Amino acid sequence: MNILIVYAHPEPTSLNGSLKEFACSLLESQGHNVGISDLYEMSFKAIADGNDFRERKNPHQLNYLTEQMNASKNKSFSQDILLEQEKLEWADFVIFQFPIWWTEAPAILKGWFDRVFAFGFAYGPGAYDKGNLRGKKAMLSVTHGAPNLNNYGEFGLKGKLEERLFNIQHEKLYFSGIEVLEPFIFPSSAPLEIRNDYFENYKKRLLHIFEEPTIPFHPLSHYQNGQLVNEFRKD
Amino acid sequence: MNILIVYAHPEPTSLNGSLKEFACSLLESQGHNVGISDLYEMSFKAIADGNDFRERKNPHQLNYLTEQMNASKNKSFSQDILLEQEKLEWADFVIFQFPIWWTEAPAILKGWFDRVFAFGFAYGPGAYDKGNLRGKKAMLSVTHGAPNLNNYGEFGLKGKLEERLFNIQHEKLYFSGIEVLEPFIFPSSAPLEIRNDYFENYKKRLLHIFEEPTIPFHPLSHYQNGQLVNEFRKD
Repeated sequence: MNILIVYAHPEPTSLNGSLKEFACSLLESQGHNVGISDLYEMSFKAIADGNDFRERKNPHQLNYLTEQMNASKNKSFSQDILLEQEKLEWADFVIFQFPIWWTEAPAILKGWFDRVFAFGFAYGPGAYDKGNLRGKKAMLSVTHGAPNLNNYGEFGLKGKLEERLFNIQHEKLYFSGIEVLEPFIFPSSAPLEIRNDYFENYKKRLLHIFEEPTIPFHPLSHYQNGQLVNEFRKD
Repeated sequence: MNILIVYAHPEPTSLNGSLKEFACSLLESQGHNVGISDLYEMSFKAIADGNDFRERKNPHQLNYLTEQMNASKNKSFSQDILLEQEKLEWADFVIFQFPIWWTEAPAILKGWFDRVFAFGFAYGPGAYDKGNLRGKKAMLSVTHGAPNLNNYGEFGLKGKLEERLFNIQHEKLYFSGIEVLEPFIFPSSAPLEIRNDYFENYKKRLLHIFEEPTIPFHPLSHYQNGQLVNEFRKD
């Protein structure tokens, strides 16, 4: 299968860099085709602006969504965006490897979503289970620096990590039709002697990423007028 | 008082641009000093990397947090970061004006947090109500394009907007010691005939931003070992 790793970390010898290399080697050894978008190495442009379009529907006033829809129709995005969109079309599975900074992705990866997951390309007219990237799967592989794992517990200082990641997992990936696996989470505070266990666990998951069940988000049919209908509220 | 508006939108004639101008004029007419960080106009660098430090503790391997702590001690951040940190020190109140893109801030603003809210400057050793920016207040003024306001209801497709904004309001601002007012939310789907009402409501809030109560987030003393203690869980 075709697997794209979107990787966002400024230091190649970091834990994130190791996890990216680890996944790449393992997946290739399993016969998969692996593509990598190393956003830092590519100096990927993070900032969404008028230069993202080779022709403008309205060159005088920028409505970014309108221009995205126009560029999706005419394939007139800037070259760097088109290239990433081609990689996404090629991929059956996308792994996002990044450190959680301020409970979100680093800006370079947020910008990748702002620019690449365009209106008309990733979603629109349909979204969620009607999103344009349906049929694909994805998984976040993240590191975080919380000194105490309780911070991410149900009554933790930061709330549940799955809630912190909802803006990415549900509101970007699933919004665009992508089914999402549970994240792989590597606390960077893990002492050296148990780091191997984390790599072992990651390996076990990578060996079965196409069989692993995805997070059971509600399809659009469970909502009426934007609200989850009563019978599904107990999930 | 000193008020900083951090503004992130690529189009000056946008609704966001109007809201920025509106707030600026009104607050100045009330005798406040208003500073503006127009991130797009400044071509603010969004990407956190080794160039953010004029001297490096370790020039061979980048540990961003370690370098931030070092630069906080030595004031050796790059000039653009130092300038934004000076503006923050000057400000009693910060308004963030931006469009919600993918339930988060545009990447250029995410990068502003990644780079400017540095370890050792905005937080560290203390965080939350012990954060270094305590004494300041902030408010998000955001637009969003949800076609149906129900999408942000309790059982809405996107969940409550306050939960979507928790990663900014709680995990960036309050984490750094800043008290946060309820956000001002302007749905860009609002028909033209009621837009004036939104501006009127914004005006009413801006006239009393220093008196308005802030969101009652739990102080660190309500937590034990990272977990909210039982007596506060009913809040």
